[in-house]
Amino acid sequence: MLATTSTVLARRSFNNGRNIVASSRGLLSRRLSQNSGDSPRVVFSGIQPTGIPHLGNYLGALLNWVRLQQDAGPKDELIFSIVGWHALTLPQDPRELSRSRRDALAVLLSIGIDPKRSTLFHQDENPHHTELAWLFNCITPVGKLRRMTTWKSRLAVSRNANDESEVDESMLNAGLLTYPVLQAADILVYKATHVPVGEDQKQHLELARDIADTFNRTFKGKSRLFPLPEFVATPTRRVLSLKDPTSKMSKSAPDVQSRILLTDTAAQIKSKIRGAVTDSISGITYDPVSRPGAANLLTILAACTNEEPTEVAKRYANKGHGDLKADVVDAVENLLRKPRAEFERLRSEDAYLSEVAREGASKARARSEVTMQEIRKRVGLV
Amino acid sequence: MLATTSTVLARRSFNNGRNIVASSRGLLSRRLSQNSGDSPRVVFSGIQPTGIPHLGNYLGALLNWVRLQQDAGPKDELIFSIVGWHALTLPQDPRELSRSRRDALAVLLSIGIDPKRSTLFHQDENPHHTELAWLFNCITPVGKLRRMTTWKSRLAVSRNANDESEVDESMLNAGLLTYPVLQAADILVYKATHVPVGEDQKQHLELARDIADTFNRTFKGKSRLFPLPEFVATPTRRVLSLKDPTSKMSKSAPDVQSRILLTDTAAQIKSKIRGAVTDSISGITYDPVSRPGAANLLTILAACTNEEPTEVAKRYANKGHGDLKADVVDAVENLLRKPRAEFERLRSEDAYLSEVAREGASKARARSEVTMQEIRKRVGLV
Repeated sequence: MLATTSTVLARRSFNNGRNIVASSRGLLSRRLSQNSGDSPRVVFSGIQPTGIPHLGNYLGALLNWVRLQQDAGPKDELIFSIVGWHALTLPQDPRELSRSRRDALAVLLSIGIDPKRSTLFHQDENPHHTELAWLFNCITPVGKLRRMTTWKSRLAVSRNANDESEVDESMLNAGLLTYPVLQAADILVYKATHVPVGEDQKQHLELARDIADTFNRTFKGKSRLFPLPEFVATPTRRVLSLKDPTSKMSKSAPDVQSRILLTDTAAQIKSKIRGAVTDSISGITYDPVSRPGAANLLTILAACTNEEPTEVAKRYANKGHGDLKADVVDAVENLLRKPRAEFERLRSEDAYLSEVAREGASKARARSEVTMQEIRKRVGLV
Repeated sequence: MLATTSTVLARRSFNNGRNIVASSRGLLSRRLSQNSGDSPRVVFSGIQPTGIPHLGNYLGALLNWVRLQQDAGPKDELIFSIVGWHALTLPQDPRELSRSRRDALAVLLSIGIDPKRSTLFHQDENPHHTELAWLFNCITPVGKLRRMTTWKSRLAVSRNANDESEVDESMLNAGLLTYPVLQAADILVYKATHVPVGEDQKQHLELARDIADTFNRTFKGKSRLFPLPEFVATPTRRVLSLKDPTSKMSKSAPDVQSRILLTDTAAQIKSKIRGAVTDSISGITYDPVSRPGAANLLTILAACTNEEPTEVAKRYANKGHGDLKADVVDAVENLLRKPRAEFERLRSEDAYLSEVAREGASKARARSEVTMQEIRKRVGLV
């Protein structure tokens, strides 16, 4: 396998974790309806298949996909992709990747993504993504890609890991440099109009808009081919590590007690939350800077009950950490019980999962084929 | 359209012009049969669809494809591709590209590529090329791509054209940086074992071998997945400009009299060769350094008669440039008459060309699908 220096960054490289944030309380729905254009709205988002999602992924991103689906108008299209090609930008164990790829599909179904309502598919089963990415490579200057902060961060991580100042970008692979171009293709091959992503992915969405605009200007036709996809700002549920509440909950942190997985049992949830790092100040207040551990528990509880952490905090002003933790245990267990059971059930339904993947890919391909035919005509590959 | 600074380099960027050189007098066939492995040989080569080929392309490359087809053993596979995706690395007029793409197919058929014997297809109609290119991007360090001499040359051309020292690689597009990776995918998606290319493409073939080796070591299985494709060295027919015999015959030179196109009429051929720059030394000798114009005419004549220029020169030792030119006119006209007529005929058979393209793409896809399934299994995208 390749070196694993940038794994931590890797795991949140696409729309993983909190990077996909969407509507809480129908916010996206309101945002979408403010845009009173005639053309239907097309929402696109993706998640990397890199292991069972944890509570941070669920509350920060995946739960929002479900809400998006609930809130969308009848003409809105929803396209959710498990982006396998992106996972390859970092070293992966093939057997684990294969399992994670299937897990991701089962998770999305188990939390309530409806494959009849939304287009749910594996990116790597629709070849139009890499075709369009190639074309976009041909209109994207290398300099723009080197200015992406994700690229710079990876460079910094590599430098750090190797602990020698002469490490430069030459050692990183071309997939890491060009994956924002593939992301642009993921979005634009469906002419997506709305892309809910976190702040840290905003620069990539700007690049996608930039590429769309360059294409429209370079390959003129009766009308501009690509819409400029809009950034959908939505409240972010930033769930932190239970053991180090100054950093995000992470799939790759060494201490497994620091995160709750969607597949954790009731006993595991209880043990992990009971063992969460807090402080010795009496009474509960929401103070993310001075009291990050308590604030994190309040954030989790608020996300489960669809409230704001500050509201929740008021109810615990005169209570202790033990009380708060007990309620968080219950709330998380309530939240995860059904998806967990559904996940276990689906994970043994291999034929059904295959069928869903097959149908999803077929829908996605048929959808993007229309765009690709227009594109081929514009650039002269007909 | 994009800036057109590196058009000259562009036009010979893939296997254009003399870059594809193959067997003269069955040399490749002998080379192939020296390799006495059990597995059948798979020959791959590609040409960019960037206008009607000229005599340099024909004698340096395309004629060799026909000889390869004639010389190949019954078990040898021949795969010839019109590489449309590569053409996009440089600015193209969409209508011209579309015409050139169809022209390229008609030219290959008219010179004798048999679509029943060889797999003849448009690269852009087989999505496995860009899929595998993406995967290869993920195992290819950026530094390796920046060390390609083609990249460095483009950088130099851009600097020159812009005439400002601060021009750097950031202005060039990511397609130019990564197209050697797409070339590697072009070759390896068919597990090609033999690739006839010119010296100036040798570094790219080295990269393809390197990528194949990295893949084999990174994604181990029962056996190594990719063969390491071999460079097939073959005699090069380097046809020079008729107006400036110190540079290659080129599609993009401003003076159309400097090149003979495959579609030129007998009158055009005569006029262009009669007007070719020679020298005022009496008698004919083959001396490429001091007498490049005469040497070029000898090279052309020798290529038409399948001899060596030095042999041909002996017959003209006591003759003048006029005699030589008259014979070159006849030889070139004899060489091009049939292909030209066939090209004209085929170019009006649009339905037939579409059928050939469709069948070729279908054969190519079926062929590469086998490789892609193995690859997906190895990397875990199943």
